[in-house]
Amino acid sequence: MLKRYGGQTVLFNNPVGIAAAASIVGPKEGEGPLGAKFDRVEKDPMLGAESWEKAESEFVKAAAKMAVEKARASMGDIDYIIAGDLLNQSTGSIFGLRETMRPYLGIFGACSAMGEGMSIGGMLIDGGFAAKVLCLASSHFCSAEKQFRFPLELGSQRPLTSSWTVTGAAGVVLGGTGGPAVMGCTTGKMVDMGIKDAHNMGAAMAGAAADTIAAHLEDTSRTPDYYDMIITGDLGYVGQELLLQLMKKKGYDIAHNHKDCGIEIFDRDSQDTHSGGSGCACSGVVLAAHFLEKMKGGEIGKILFVPTGALMSPTSVQQGESIPGIAHAVVIENYQ
Amino acid sequence: MLKRYGGQTVLFNNPVGIAAAASIVGPKEGEGPLGAKFDRVEKDPMLGAESWEKAESEFVKAAAKMAVEKARASMGDIDYIIAGDLLNQSTGSIFGLRETMRPYLGIFGACSAMGEGMSIGGMLIDGGFAAKVLCLASSHFCSAEKQFRFPLELGSQRPLTSSWTVTGAAGVVLGGTGGPAVMGCTTGKMVDMGIKDAHNMGAAMAGAAADTIAAHLEDTSRTPDYYDMIITGDLGYVGQELLLQLMKKKGYDIAHNHKDCGIEIFDRDSQDTHSGGSGCACSGVVLAAHFLEKMKGGEIGKILFVPTGALMSPTSVQQGESIPGIAHAVVIENYQ
Repeated sequence: MLKRYGGQTVLFNNPVGIAAAASIVGPKEGEGPLGAKFDRVEKDPMLGAESWEKAESEFVKAAAKMAVEKARASMGDIDYIIAGDLLNQSTGSIFGLRETMRPYLGIFGACSAMGEGMSIGGMLIDGGFAAKVLCLASSHFCSAEKQFRFPLELGSQRPLTSSWTVTGAAGVVLGGTGGPAVMGCTTGKMVDMGIKDAHNMGAAMAGAAADTIAAHLEDTSRTPDYYDMIITGDLGYVGQELLLQLMKKKGYDIAHNHKDCGIEIFDRDSQDTHSGGSGCACSGVVLAAHFLEKMKGGEIGKILFVPTGALMSPTSVQQGESIPGIAHAVVIENYQ
Repeated sequence: MLKRYGGQTVLFNNPVGIAAAASIVGPKEGEGPLGAKFDRVEKDPMLGAESWEKAESEFVKAAAKMAVEKARASMGDIDYIIAGDLLNQSTGSIFGLRETMRPYLGIFGACSAMGEGMSIGGMLIDGGFAAKVLCLASSHFCSAEKQFRFPLELGSQRPLTSSWTVTGAAGVVLGGTGGPAVMGCTTGKMVDMGIKDAHNMGAAMAGAAADTIAAHLEDTSRTPDYYDMIITGDLGYVGQELLLQLMKKKGYDIAHNHKDCGIEIFDRDSQDTHSGGSGCACSGVVLAAHFLEKMKGGEIGKILFVPTGALMSPTSVQQGESIPGIAHAVVIENYQ
């Protein structure tokens, strides 16, 4: 029996409970509107490490530990760890997790990592291959700027379309009972809008977000109002505007219930991040600290969580390639 | 009901048939002992592209197309594409597959990609989430040397422990009937042997291979002789020697039935590759062209396929990190 609901969507036989979600961020994120909600705000974005890359790994390590503790489990209870980040060869995740000694599945979906991880993790649990899966996503402003854009020391001016990579890491333990649960997922296709500007990720990803959200609604014959909120990962202000336009063209109005983690995490007026927040950590920490807490409080009951990724490398951009986007949707609903 | 057989292993309820496997390689691989067996040997390692990175994407694109054709399917029949490579931000896979318009799950496990992809793909099919999954892995000697080691133009001397990155791509379509089938998998943990020499991948990966193979045998209470062959990905001569020693320490003698794809693909005497072949493509193309064909011909019936990965980036090596290894084992057996 296939559980596929339609072209790209699977809905699970049994809810895959979210046992715990942990968020650890840097100081700038701590100063933002969600600052008080994060599990931990680190004053030192280096976390005592000697390099930005090693600092990112320290965030991953701390988020993994905290997520497992919040789930009242031990690392030995975790059947699979699924993790992704933006660094070359995923070293943020690898060096943060190499001491866990648990089966490890590395993923790369750029900033869609938490969506891809929760999708695979949900399927592994619903399929009976695992009882508990730990999903992780991380990013670091300094390691990302160094790798993708300009040396920070240059003090280059950032264009208004650019977003600010979130420093932090999120860990989600799947395999719980009661409360918010993963009910299914819609796995995204790559969608290339022809954007070649590495400072305009929102535009590069908006098409993929629209494609995945529309595919989800068509596959399930749901209307946008089925969800209290449809939450993209890091489109920012620029990408949100494009998403709403693209959805309207497809016949869906999601203006009233669309949220974007990149918009939520920073204050537009005071924090000078331009289009908003981005990075693999962005959707993860905002889901963990903000939206899942709203669900637990009963304020909202059903969300479509859609982390978005811009699939490019400095090499691909320098060689004139456009930037394909991808977005993976995860259905999360409260259940008893 | 959990299908987990033990700590790291799942065995499937139903065999996941391998519908087709395709291999496309460059000229040096074509001159090796398996040259006549590959589906296609390209005389031009650039495949007409303007850069090594774009050439790698062309190999991926060609392998995807050929694998789907050999499976007598169309791209629209593929429920998930799972792909990985060595390039920064997985651009080999991404730009080779962006036009497929199928749900895409990017993975990163360095050269263990085909093992990770077939493991996830097998679980998605056995779990009822997909009917057909296309797994891809690619590498390119030139793009890998440029990214990980020295500019090719320097003509740097290669140490005797170094391996030669295979130029090529492999595509495996899971979801067939009859013949070789995936029966389960053992997902590897990261194992760090403290190796810091980026020219000695075999040593960095041998510990992970031993760990995964031993875990598989313990989880399933099988002896090494259950398998006609236990086939690692790209340990090469240096890594093979270490693996056999480590296995002996763990109480297992696999000297008589161990094979390594990196040893099989090049001729030791005439091709000057030193420790053997490596790269994500190595295990994939050798599985597709050589071992699966032996299974179809009835020469062998049961193999444990164990692609191996060295988890490092130039940045992590330059910052003094050691190189964790990982190995994912896939059980492949003939069935009617």
